[in-house]
Amino acid sequence: MENLFVIKIGGNVVDNDPALQSFLTNFAAIPQKKILVHGGGRIATTLGRQLGIEPDYINGRRITDGSTIDLVTMVYGGLVNKKLVASLQAHHCNAIGLTGADANIIPAVKRPVADIDYGFVGDIKYDSVGVNNLQIFLNNNLVPVIAPLTHDGNGQLLNTNADTIASALAVALSKQYAVRLIYCFEKKGVLENMDDEDSVIPLINKTKYRQLMQDKKLADGILPKIGNAFAAIDAGVQEVLIGDANDLLQNITENTIGTLIKP
Amino acid sequence: MENLFVIKIGGNVVDNDPALQSFLTNFAAIPQKKILVHGGGRIATTLGRQLGIEPDYINGRRITDGSTIDLVTMVYGGLVNKKLVASLQAHHCNAIGLTGADANIIPAVKRPVADIDYGFVGDIKYDSVGVNNLQIFLNNNLVPVIAPLTHDGNGQLLNTNADTIASALAVALSKQYAVRLIYCFEKKGVLENMDDEDSVIPLINKTKYRQLMQDKKLADGILPKIGNAFAAIDAGVQEVLIGDANDLLQNITENTIGTLIKP
Repeated sequence: MENLFVIKIGGNVVDNDPALQSFLTNFAAIPQKKILVHGGGRIATTLGRQLGIEPDYINGRRITDGSTIDLVTMVYGGLVNKKLVASLQAHHCNAIGLTGADANIIPAVKRPVADIDYGFVGDIKYDSVGVNNLQIFLNNNLVPVIAPLTHDGNGQLLNTNADTIASALAVALSKQYAVRLIYCFEKKGVLENMDDEDSVIPLINKTKYRQLMQDKKLADGILPKIGNAFAAIDAGVQEVLIGDANDLLQNITENTIGTLIKP
Repeated sequence: MENLFVIKIGGNVVDNDPALQSFLTNFAAIPQKKILVHGGGRIATTLGRQLGIEPDYINGRRITDGSTIDLVTMVYGGLVNKKLVASLQAHHCNAIGLTGADANIIPAVKRPVADIDYGFVGDIKYDSVGVNNLQIFLNNNLVPVIAPLTHDGNGQLLNTNADTIASALAVALSKQYAVRLIYCFEKKGVLENMDDEDSVIPLINKTKYRQLMQDKKLADGILPKIGNAFAAIDAGVQEVLIGDANDLLQNITENTIGTLIKP
């Protein structure tokens, strides 16, 4: 099977112009098929404040009311997405910016209200990801650049976590491609010792994962990422890589700096 | 040759929800291949005011400074474009929202500074319109929905008039398709008598155009539209239709209400 890289960058890259420019250079240079999924960055919060829209969180999850979905549609789907696309075009990478509504690539359902009403948040309909249209883009040398927005099929845009979108796309495309899912974040990888930035664990398999869990060595923030990574691998993704955007992409075809997660 | 409709709607449709919903229903129902080009509407101005960005015009042309290009990228490329796409998806029309940077469909150059510095305004490179990628979308039953933004190929997004984008796309695709270019605006068509809303001229050919010019019967606002229309026809577009969005689309395959412009 042909290789496909699904690469997710978060606010720490989007908000930091030198890091972003370096990332985009490295990303554009990847010769294989690739998809970029981006988070939002601080600008949605900054702009929201200017417009009188205060962010509201429950359990670390942003509540998306009517004003907020408009705000993130503007910022994630407009400003951030189109600037990434225009920058990639300057690197001769034929990027095409998309939300989940465009070409119906990521249908979702508004999260049902249980204890908490998350508002306009979308849970992806995994079986309905628009694999055919994504393949059409990839086969025509277009590079999808995807904002963390989905839609409900009834005209409503929805806010969806960018990590989750990257994972859903990686899984959905794993029947057609040998998918490497890459989560770029603010550390060099999963750390053996939370106080030592250089204690990156190069490889985590399930045995190692269980051992790390038993020893309570993993920081709270990293647990869901590793859980998602194994879920993606169980669903057909070949491998998952977690680490620093520029470390990972400079070495993408050779020895990697970062944490590789394999069965 | 297969038919292709290139349809431009302006702020008067985007800003008016009942008119917009009716338009989208009619647009989605067109069985032929089609492209929608949209203007921005009042929301960019309203939002800009909230953010302290005052619109600046010279000779009726908006000056696009750095804050304004970010604003219109958010509003035109994000909010307006993605809401149109999500609404069309609800009508089972597989819309894909694009700016000129996406898939490099509309390369442009920043307008050279002569007497006036228009700022980040793009003049389309007509010979470089991404006809191949547009055909790929159209051949796969995707419906491009295009925001009035272009890019310079060096990473800079640019503001470009939506009428001009519609005309450029119509001309560029006229070698592959029998293109009907449709300008929706606030009148029922070109009026014989500016004071009589019902005095729509059903057909304007070049002879009639010269006669109307001699008689000074045309309102100032309509002159550039008709000039553009004949330019598009001279460059290969089959016909141009000018009128009210819903009148035109309800009758698109039969007798039209509006003004038809033909050689």
